[in-house]
Amino acid sequence: MKIAHYTDTPAEPVAEAPGVTIRWVIGKKDNAPHFAMRVIEVAPGSNTAYHAHEFEHEVFILAGRGAVRDAAGSETIVEAGSVVFVPPNAVHGFYNRGDKTLRFICVIPHV
Amino acid sequence: MKIAHYTDTPAEPVAEAPGVTIRWVIGKKDNAPHFAMRVIEVAPGSNTAYHAHEFEHEVFILAGRGAVRDAAGSETIVEAGSVVFVPPNAVHGFYNRGDKTLRFICVIPHV
Repeated sequence: MKIAHYTDTPAEPVAEAPGVTIRWVIGKKDNAPHFAMRVIEVAPGSNTAYHAHEFEHEVFILAGRGAVRDAAGSETIVEAGSVVFVPPNAVHGFYNRGDKTLRFICVIPHV
Repeated sequence: MKIAHYTDTPAEPVAEAPGVTIRWVIGKKDNAPHFAMRVIEVAPGSNTAYHAHEFEHEVFILAGRGAVRDAAGSETIVEAGSVVFVPPNAVHGFYNRGDKTLRFICVIPHV
């Protein structure tokens, strides 16, 4: 059993997304067999990559105010307590639309 | 893409754990291919089952003050921001050790 605070895991910059960091709080290094939990932080004015990929995202918004952009370019506002399921191959991007850090959990299968 | 608030999903009582509810916020009903995200709430004085099973848990504590009990009966205090990885077959239980609701995310593979 591993018990830690999420801030015990270093926040790594995301090369393709300035202003975005990621913490791999549970993953292969912990011998997690199927999927990884990450905590992602997006600075005001920044966003994650607007893209698609074969694996899904299961997301829970922890703090801040953001928007999720879909394949059509439509945006839906999210805040603490919002849940987002991004199916495989769905175009998506997470945008900070507030003045504080947008922080969310994002779980993905091992890839 | 599914975007909702976690409270949009009904909280179901957990038969074997009085004072505990579960919301399946992302799961098979959403065509999630590999794993399910649940939000679990434990009332003051209550706890989840103290047990073990073949699948893992990836947990993030959202609110409240709790304790995680391991196979030896040792307890570790957790609070908002704590991360818990319960490997397959590890004995575990989540206990509310505060005076407010203990709320956490718990992700499991489809079983």
